[in-house]
Amino acid sequence: MTRSGFSPGSLAEKVLAGDRSALGRAITLIESGKSEHQEQAHAVLDRCLERPRGDSFRIGITGSPGAGKSTLIEALGLEILKEPRNRLAVLAIDPSSTRSGGSILGDKARMERLASRQEAFIRPSPSSGHLGGTSPRTHEAILLCEAAGYNIVLVETVGVGQSEISVEAMVDYILLLMLPGSGDELQGIKRGIMEIADGIALTKTDEAPAKSVANSRSAFASALSLLPKKHPGWSPSVIPVSSVNGEGIAGIWKDMRRFRSVLGENGLFEENRKKQLDKLFRSQVDELLLKAFYANAELRSSLPAIAAAVRDERVSPFSGAKRLVESIIRSPR
Amino acid sequence: MTRSGFSPGSLAEKVLAGDRSALGRAITLIESGKSEHQEQAHAVLDRCLERPRGDSFRIGITGSPGAGKSTLIEALGLEILKEPRNRLAVLAIDPSSTRSGGSILGDKARMERLASRQEAFIRPSPSSGHLGGTSPRTHEAILLCEAAGYNIVLVETVGVGQSEISVEAMVDYILLLMLPGSGDELQGIKRGIMEIADGIALTKTDEAPAKSVANSRSAFASALSLLPKKHPGWSPSVIPVSSVNGEGIAGIWKDMRRFRSVLGENGLFEENRKKQLDKLFRSQVDELLLKAFYANAELRSSLPAIAAAVRDERVSPFSGAKRLVESIIRSPR
Repeated sequence: MTRSGFSPGSLAEKVLAGDRSALGRAITLIESGKSEHQEQAHAVLDRCLERPRGDSFRIGITGSPGAGKSTLIEALGLEILKEPRNRLAVLAIDPSSTRSGGSILGDKARMERLASRQEAFIRPSPSSGHLGGTSPRTHEAILLCEAAGYNIVLVETVGVGQSEISVEAMVDYILLLMLPGSGDELQGIKRGIMEIADGIALTKTDEAPAKSVANSRSAFASALSLLPKKHPGWSPSVIPVSSVNGEGIAGIWKDMRRFRSVLGENGLFEENRKKQLDKLFRSQVDELLLKAFYANAELRSSLPAIAAAVRDERVSPFSGAKRLVESIIRSPR
Repeated sequence: MTRSGFSPGSLAEKVLAGDRSALGRAITLIESGKSEHQEQAHAVLDRCLERPRGDSFRIGITGSPGAGKSTLIEALGLEILKEPRNRLAVLAIDPSSTRSGGSILGDKARMERLASRQEAFIRPSPSSGHLGGTSPRTHEAILLCEAAGYNIVLVETVGVGQSEISVEAMVDYILLLMLPGSGDELQGIKRGIMEIADGIALTKTDEAPAKSVANSRSAFASALSLLPKKHPGWSPSVIPVSSVNGEGIAGIWKDMRRFRSVLGENGLFEENRKKQLDKLFRSQVDELLLKAFYANAELRSSLPAIAAAVRDERVSPFSGAKRLVESIIRSPR
């Protein structure tokens, strides 16, 4: 039984039936630090994954704070919901500062119109020490949303480098938000981020002079042309948008659907999904292996003394680790 | 015997004697992907760590590309070498792009005057997929440099978020480089990075109007005053510098020495070092544990089939991982 008093089986049934509060509970279980909660959530997920699923499309939205992510997600989300078959989940990663634990963004209040829609599910998630990035459980949360019938999943992250690399491992398309005239286009720092973008939105064009928008657009386009292609057959576009007057919003969604169809046809969409599943599987294996090891009674009893010797520089970290591991495992031969 | 034909013992002797090419070889061993090379390097390090060592000071230098890291490191390095007892090692992390494998920075040519000094050792290291960050072996490379008698170690990284978090785990003092008037001070994105800075250098002040320098300085100072203190007893300063006309370079080195003495007196310097050693030890334990696991014959034979089933969605990543791990370890009870 889960802590909410549901068995994994009945919680899975509710998630599969599209019950929003059951979905919320399942995500909470996944995000819990307690391993029994995660086991329950994985049992729920296993049940869900047994069922045939429809198509889904996972989209990462990234950009510096102030680039206009929330307003763009709201505008784009409402555009997506114009198609009656669509149901939209938004996983908004709350970039808690690693040190102060403080939170910059608010909650659903940021996307009020979208939040009021029955076909939308908005979930802010703590990034818990993962600087501005996806939480380690974001991939699992995406799978749960899909099981609950949300065929479009938007994942919001803050553009600080490493986090985009990790979101790349769980979404199909990455939209990078940039302010025109911010000078970002001139700085090498964005290069690593631009390399993983499938599309670039130049945001808040209503606030910038037309000339600065045009300049930024061509600067980004020429920067993109110098980068290696992320996917054969796909060239990212630079699309000026305004979430205030709606400019470019429909164009972005059109670009995303075009991406879906191009990569669907050349097989890369499916191939990418397989790679992502493999990555998730391998990280699960590592996690379970380490958990099993640290549960070993012998290791637990010898760890503190060796750790103390390392801290006091009586033993090097390398031979300390070797001694500890060899005490419970014979060397492979 | 190492691949260079030295036994770990004789290589360690040469490193301890300050032999530059031996130090270079030892770092190359550490950075090698081959585990037998790493084992040899750890054997060298173990020998080195047995000897009593003098004081050392480890300094991280971080900032966006274009902030002037190389020129500042050269100017600061020459300032540090004005004290005859100092020997300086510079570990310059080469921010190879994760995707293209390309390299933005050059090599020692960037720090020509410093490179020509006998008391300086400059080592560019590939960051190998760690976006702009420290390589996983940087901590070990620092220890090797110290064993070779370099009492000051500068570690250069590119400011993209996660990398500063990892350099924080291996240096005593972090200097953050910022361009005046870059607008960085207004963006929340730098917050996570500012929180780990022990000092801020406003660079290239010779190129900026005095007013813009003054504005940036007070903006950073007030931003710093709002952040939680990283170390009790230490408030980071904002120091305008020019590597061209030498402004502020001596001031930065003075600030660093003051930090060393303040934190030496209140015991935090030593405490921080112990924590860092502990972190290195624990990451070594995880690494060895996983290596031992993946060397297990049973695991190696069942992994491919389960991985294929996961990729084809016949098994979920979670139950696949569980099945694999439980096939070789009994569940802890």
